[in-house]
Amino acid sequence: MALARVYMDWNATAPLMDEARQAMVDTFALPGNASSVHAEGRAARAAVEKSRRHVAALVGAEPAHVIFTSGATEAINHVLTPDFRMGRSPLKVSRLYASAIEHSAVREGGRFAPEQISRFAATRSGVVDLEALEQALAGHDRSAGLPMVALMLVNNETGVIQPVSEAAQIVHRYGGLLIVDAVQAVGRIPVDIAALDADFLILTSHKIGGPKGVGALVARGEALMPEPLIRGGGQEKGHRSGTENFHAIIGFAAAAEAALEGLGERNSLIPRLRDDLEAGMLAAAPDVIIHGRDVDRVANTCFFSLPGLKSETGQIAFDLEGVAISAGSACSSGKVGQSQVLTAMGFDNEIGGLRISIGPKTTRDDIAATLAAFKKISDRRRPAGEAA
Amino acid sequence: MALARVYMDWNATAPLMDEARQAMVDTFALPGNASSVHAEGRAARAAVEKSRRHVAALVGAEPAHVIFTSGATEAINHVLTPDFRMGRSPLKVSRLYASAIEHSAVREGGRFAPEQISRFAATRSGVVDLEALEQALAGHDRSAGLPMVALMLVNNETGVIQPVSEAAQIVHRYGGLLIVDAVQAVGRIPVDIAALDADFLILTSHKIGGPKGVGALVARGEALMPEPLIRGGGQEKGHRSGTENFHAIIGFAAAAEAALEGLGERNSLIPRLRDDLEAGMLAAAPDVIIHGRDVDRVANTCFFSLPGLKSETGQIAFDLEGVAISAGSACSSGKVGQSQVLTAMGFDNEIGGLRISIGPKTTRDDIAATLAAFKKISDRRRPAGEAA
Repeated sequence: MALARVYMDWNATAPLMDEARQAMVDTFALPGNASSVHAEGRAARAAVEKSRRHVAALVGAEPAHVIFTSGATEAINHVLTPDFRMGRSPLKVSRLYASAIEHSAVREGGRFAPEQISRFAATRSGVVDLEALEQALAGHDRSAGLPMVALMLVNNETGVIQPVSEAAQIVHRYGGLLIVDAVQAVGRIPVDIAALDADFLILTSHKIGGPKGVGALVARGEALMPEPLIRGGGQEKGHRSGTENFHAIIGFAAAAEAALEGLGERNSLIPRLRDDLEAGMLAAAPDVIIHGRDVDRVANTCFFSLPGLKSETGQIAFDLEGVAISAGSACSSGKVGQSQVLTAMGFDNEIGGLRISIGPKTTRDDIAATLAAFKKISDRRRPAGEAA
Repeated sequence: MALARVYMDWNATAPLMDEARQAMVDTFALPGNASSVHAEGRAARAAVEKSRRHVAALVGAEPAHVIFTSGATEAINHVLTPDFRMGRSPLKVSRLYASAIEHSAVREGGRFAPEQISRFAATRSGVVDLEALEQALAGHDRSAGLPMVALMLVNNETGVIQPVSEAAQIVHRYGGLLIVDAVQAVGRIPVDIAALDADFLILTSHKIGGPKGVGALVARGEALMPEPLIRGGGQEKGHRSGTENFHAIIGFAAAAEAALEGLGERNSLIPRLRDDLEAGMLAAAPDVIIHGRDVDRVANTCFFSLPGLKSETGQIAFDLEGVAISAGSACSSGKVGQSQVLTAMGFDNEIGGLRISIGPKTTRDDIAATLAAFKKISDRRRPAGEAA
């Protein structure tokens, strides 16, 4: 008998939602080169521009300020660069200040040289330390260029919501640019680029149930823009060349539309399910550490450590029980190492972090199955202090 | 009554082929993050690696040498860079020699500064001038770094097949790197990276009937690689970060498999259809210039000029007749200007170029409809010499 699988790794990737799938399938018959001038091309162009409006609406931005990319990582590499233009004039950014809990794509620093990148710390709850940010910016030497700050809105591992608009006040007081990775935030909490006072937002489709391979760099305005990363045919007003990813963009827009609706009634079960899960976990293993419970978190994420259980062992154990969860970020070709986020939060290498993340299709049965696996795995742990 | 549309712009983008659509739809239910270590992630990884084998087979490459990208333009920007590594040692390329008939994505020069880019000429038939290439390389100053040459295998506008393996002999005699844009070649002629003696090939999925948003950079070996363009989670062995574009990669592979089969029986009607079309055009308008007829061309492309008909006017006229064709390359957000390829072939700005390109689903009826439109438009031309 095949074991029914329970997918609890929505922060790594969300299954393609019905709306996105349907929107793509419905347009699969169209050739869809939005750069062609014939009727087929103009129809594709209209669909791309309509999609741009939906994606813009998800974050309260102007459609004209949405640049479609192949995903968040490309958008990050596009915007994390020392070379900007203000209108036609070049503008230099001389240093990137990235929070210590950023996704590896941001931590790598895009087009900044390693020596141009600084980190600022986070607290044990997984919230960035704004005093550390302010101190860093106070020491910034503006003679070589502006400072840039990268701060994610919702951490991918802990789900902890970061104080972005407060950070924006600090960053802008020092004349800097604020780049906000909102990948894990959209569809989970309301996101508004103006309210956050971010200069650029990073989005990706596949975390909200759209297709993979498409994302966006969203700008606050039009005057200040990074030098293109991908040059060629001049698509996306010259900011990002390459044939528009027609079907994927349409799927992204459908997911964005659904995600915006989901902020209302549609996802209202998610907080209840997560809270039930965590209550069950605490009852089964009182020593479990659920990270970020004392601060604001998105409702779909539970990042925890079980003393005596390493990340890799834990993830494999859940997998064998039929439950797909993750040990933090899913990247680097399946490597499982110490979570950089846990390290940034001040935990030592001995403690493993495991992430359960759910979505609109998660059921009570999924939670029950996950909890049953959790109990089994927790009970099997070697008692603390026992020799290996 | 709605006019039935005839799509004759396969070189801009091919409609999604049934095999690719089905392969994608069949896997839409899988979450498909190939970087996750759980069973779902491992299944996605296996599917991506199987896809890599199919794409490699299309060009006779090793699967391990295929790097999936978001398309040709990204792959071009990835490989057109002064910064390479040979193993762990940095290796500098100091100048890009691009043929004058390259696609705009190559002409822009990727990560080379404008002053690091040279052009070499083409003949009036649309074939590059190998003597011009040799002269250029003979003058290359190796003290600053190696030369890199970009030469496409099949021109996107004329369909003319370029002498790549002959160029490779010259390039390698001067110790340079040869980058071959094979985007318009695969699925139309046999392509083998070793036979071409290319160092890198550029591929894209949507020109062979796969989905948009995915392509590949294919290397001859593993030792010599460009510095990554997109850094982050370390996917694609660190060469290209970002969540693998799972469903699109699967669609690309299905299209690659079908394209390889298509080189046999499947597309055998294409040359006949194109030849019938051109015979009809010559009969209807003896003054039509069909470019590249005296040299080797792929069988699906007809690039022509009608004296007295501008590109833009011609394209609009065909469109109004229900026939989608293009005025050369489809990019730059629908701009129609003088074809750079025609200019490179030595034609002046007065002559317009129009491209008809067909594919495996093109029918005799499509050809008849196109020919009827051609006759109408040709007959309507203002006689040469008459005042505007």
